[in-house]
Amino acid sequence: MGKTRDIDDLPKNPANYTSLTPLWFLERAATVHPTRISLVHEPVQYTWQDTYQRCRRLASALSNRSFGPGNSVAVIAPNVPALFEAHFGVPMAGAVLNSVNIRLNAQAIAFLLGHSKSEVVMVDQEFYTLAEEALKIQEGNEKNFKPPLLVVIGDKSCDPKSLNYALGRGAIEYEKFLESGDPEFDWKPPEDEWQSIALGYTSGTTSSPKGVVLSHRGAYLMSLSNPIIWGMDERAIYLWTLPMFHCNGWCFTWTLAAVCVTSVCLRQVTAKAVYSAIAYAGVTHFCAAPVVLNTIINASKEETILPLPRLVHVMTAGAAPPPSVLFAMSEKGFRVTHTYGLSETYGPSTVCAWKPEWDSLPPIKQARLNARQGVRYVGLERLDVVDTKTMKPVPADGKTMGEIVMRGNVVMKGYLKNPKANEEAFANGWFHSGDLGVKNPDGYIEIKDRSKDIIISGGENISSVEVENVLYTHPAIYEVSVVARLHERWGESPCAFVTLKPEMEKNDKQQLIDDIMKFSRSNMPAYWVPRSIVFGPLPKTATGKIQKHVLRAKAKEMGPVRESKL
Amino acid sequence: MGKTRDIDDLPKNPANYTSLTPLWFLERAATVHPTRISLVHEPVQYTWQDTYQRCRRLASALSNRSFGPGNSVAVIAPNVPALFEAHFGVPMAGAVLNSVNIRLNAQAIAFLLGHSKSEVVMVDQEFYTLAEEALKIQEGNEKNFKPPLLVVIGDKSCDPKSLNYALGRGAIEYEKFLESGDPEFDWKPPEDEWQSIALGYTSGTTSSPKGVVLSHRGAYLMSLSNPIIWGMDERAIYLWTLPMFHCNGWCFTWTLAAVCVTSVCLRQVTAKAVYSAIAYAGVTHFCAAPVVLNTIINASKEETILPLPRLVHVMTAGAAPPPSVLFAMSEKGFRVTHTYGLSETYGPSTVCAWKPEWDSLPPIKQARLNARQGVRYVGLERLDVVDTKTMKPVPADGKTMGEIVMRGNVVMKGYLKNPKANEEAFANGWFHSGDLGVKNPDGYIEIKDRSKDIIISGGENISSVEVENVLYTHPAIYEVSVVARLHERWGESPCAFVTLKPEMEKNDKQQLIDDIMKFSRSNMPAYWVPRSIVFGPLPKTATGKIQKHVLRAKAKEMGPVRESKL
Repeated sequence: MGKTRDIDDLPKNPANYTSLTPLWFLERAATVHPTRISLVHEPVQYTWQDTYQRCRRLASALSNRSFGPGNSVAVIAPNVPALFEAHFGVPMAGAVLNSVNIRLNAQAIAFLLGHSKSEVVMVDQEFYTLAEEALKIQEGNEKNFKPPLLVVIGDKSCDPKSLNYALGRGAIEYEKFLESGDPEFDWKPPEDEWQSIALGYTSGTTSSPKGVVLSHRGAYLMSLSNPIIWGMDERAIYLWTLPMFHCNGWCFTWTLAAVCVTSVCLRQVTAKAVYSAIAYAGVTHFCAAPVVLNTIINASKEETILPLPRLVHVMTAGAAPPPSVLFAMSEKGFRVTHTYGLSETYGPSTVCAWKPEWDSLPPIKQARLNARQGVRYVGLERLDVVDTKTMKPVPADGKTMGEIVMRGNVVMKGYLKNPKANEEAFANGWFHSGDLGVKNPDGYIEIKDRSKDIIISGGENISSVEVENVLYTHPAIYEVSVVARLHERWGESPCAFVTLKPEMEKNDKQQLIDDIMKFSRSNMPAYWVPRSIVFGPLPKTATGKIQKHVLRAKAKEMGPVRESKL
Repeated sequence: MGKTRDIDDLPKNPANYTSLTPLWFLERAATVHPTRISLVHEPVQYTWQDTYQRCRRLASALSNRSFGPGNSVAVIAPNVPALFEAHFGVPMAGAVLNSVNIRLNAQAIAFLLGHSKSEVVMVDQEFYTLAEEALKIQEGNEKNFKPPLLVVIGDKSCDPKSLNYALGRGAIEYEKFLESGDPEFDWKPPEDEWQSIALGYTSGTTSSPKGVVLSHRGAYLMSLSNPIIWGMDERAIYLWTLPMFHCNGWCFTWTLAAVCVTSVCLRQVTAKAVYSAIAYAGVTHFCAAPVVLNTIINASKEETILPLPRLVHVMTAGAAPPPSVLFAMSEKGFRVTHTYGLSETYGPSTVCAWKPEWDSLPPIKQARLNARQGVRYVGLERLDVVDTKTMKPVPADGKTMGEIVMRGNVVMKGYLKNPKANEEAFANGWFHSGDLGVKNPDGYIEIKDRSKDIIISGGENISSVEVENVLYTHPAIYEVSVVARLHERWGESPCAFVTLKPEMEKNDKQQLIDDIMKFSRSNMPAYWVPRSIVFGPLPKTATGKIQKHVLRAKAKEMGPVRESKL
């Protein structure tokens, strides 16, 4: 058969091939909706034209000072317009954005700034002293330390004192910095779409922070997947509860420009602020970790504004949400889209796609189905649950556990300067999530645990998440995290760290422990029942993830459980 | 400043880089919604699982016969499931899909089959004799003609005679062909996303057909742009009025799989069929050229089912829709999204994005704003109106005409075996649309004419489209097309070819001409007024575009207009 390759033999040219980058989305938003509001941050608001010009000024100001390809620009800020702008302005200059977690301490920030060689540090006025402290530590760590360019971001909603302090110390004010740039700056897309656009350090629940590097290509593809999965169109108004510094807000920074959606910023996430934004700023969509949903559900009457004036869409991820939380949210009128992903996958990798046939089920059954992690995101090419030894998919029986692995264009480029971690993460041509799960007969995957969080008791695997899901239905419990504690006889046993609902705090603790134990015995297999229950606040990462490694350390200090009397 | 490229120095690997292809969308649809209806074609309907298996069977059946990379597979069929399936099954085998316009004659089809070297021809039972005739002509044209593999697609809604005829002539039945394939066929995505996925011949309004070649990458990106622009989510039900053979249905073949939307097929588009599908099949979305909208508007009472049971979204493109058509559609309850594009740009390149501030305008003003071509599609990187000599953008004054040019990943790879046409199309690093337009002060572009359709009268440019738009508001006119006719004194003058509304046909023609002339004089500049008016049906391409070159030839036959007495 005379095959011809004529049909493939048409070369790329400047008219039909260009690097994928989310930066064009902003130019488009400014053309389509120049006068529409892009960002609201009381008392300030911007239009898309403003935002585009401000981002070009930022890119120009950086370029003027020779910052560009190969440089990383760190931003230490909560959800304020400048951080949104940095998502465009920094890569428009060709540089890489390093959004820093504001809840880290100076020591950790010093490590990130040094590791990423950030030569520009943009910092919100309230975090200026933290940045100063971090730089001092960095100076002590490095032989040839060169102080970075320091830009301080003022915020009219804050006390001017901290801004004045920063200016007194010689920092450039962000608005002044922008003024030095050209609003018509002729930015260029990256020559290669594989070029890096952003760097973000993992929150380090289990190990020291790793720098996750993302490409223009991946960011572009994820930005288009988000609205398709969520059905979000340009009439939406988006509330920034999820930190932008957390995996670039799951790429929603760029998604919102692609769809021309208005952002409402929030310096601090409280139930009251969320309800107010819904009631008074017209918010229709927000993303939040399950802990934030828990805050919303358990808000006092004074903080709550119900009924909701319209259907409000919530995308949740970051930890597996207990069905009880999903149930309570839907009772209040929120429509929760449950997704699952990692910083290494640009945000969500799966979505628990709602099926019409679930509409007629009882709400608690719906919540249980919706608590599963679901099916792959449209922008991710492959996702499976595999036996880690053979790399073969586990059967879709809802029982056999395996590791969740991914493959596709929305998987990170790799960890910065960490070949060993990259080798592990990309072993056998798949990205290894480190999460253990099962595949259900309907194809929906379900996380059982982080591989490091599994409790092995008497040779049996216990999913800490499943124990937590049961405990969350106990009426006194506000938050709970279960980790392994050594056990004299069984090797390990579940240890539950519990935060009580405020109104329960005054109750007799021993009585509560007895009650929770009794509740556990009647609602879970005997070997799952926590052998130890500890009350107190739970340690969390900046993004609201409970730090199980801290709890594990605590459980270790407690020593092994002696032969249980249970 | 010591720049480091560490941050870009992370290589691609199989876990984080894979070819973009729309084929994964189908695998995802089959996982997420295996039992949901993918395609309805009375009396047949399929689920996404069925469709995925049928497409894998098709790919397997082709592979078994050594058809794969470098081969093109032609399909000659109306909007039936087999053509939808070919959009996945053919590229899953690595081959390129050549969807043939069913309204072409045997001569033209013989040219396409020869030019594309299609070694497999899949043909709908009703078009079998047409295909036979075309192959006979091809055999006469080619020295080493080798008959292709002929597969006949049966349709239960058709008379079995034509199917039996084809089977008697030795064609393989499509369902039998599928049976020979493996429903679990392990298809592979293309090694390079630049690989060709589809080939489609231009309808040739102005010149001989050119083979437009599209890539997996471009098809993927266009597929994700469509639902974002249209706000189409998985609850939609899509009616196939736009032929799938026309630029792969503007890539909606793949879009529908990406969003898991149900397709309703239509062998033949009539107003009655469209209204019935809306009333009885739950249709929410369809795409159609303006001529189809005209048919819907002018349908008789018996064919019409109004009011619409729900908001129905219509995307229109293919020719500039007259404001009067947009107005009439919105009066009937359709929401029209006006887009503009070419086969060379995978379908739409612009959308007339609706602005909230238009909501409060009078409907006719809305229709006029919406009749503009608008702003660039989210997947296209650049779009401008330029002076063709200098390639500089024209001012955004709504007056200065220039050529509409595009640049980006949703521009075709090129024309098959046509270096001269490619050189012209891609001159100066831009794709040249051949359409002339202006840029309005709000950034929205507006087509004035195809460069070949502009009428030059006394040295002044007359946009034939603008003359048509005015004539469309005349109560007797059903359809109109204006072309240049030689004029003794002015060089050229507008000549209007008019189809009357059925109820007007019996009126005195000279009186109608006088009336239209009078109407024109009071509604347009004197030099725009058509010097000649001709009644009769208008010649059209398969996709409903009026063939102006045929009308120009007629006008030429008519000879020059003598000194007008107007």
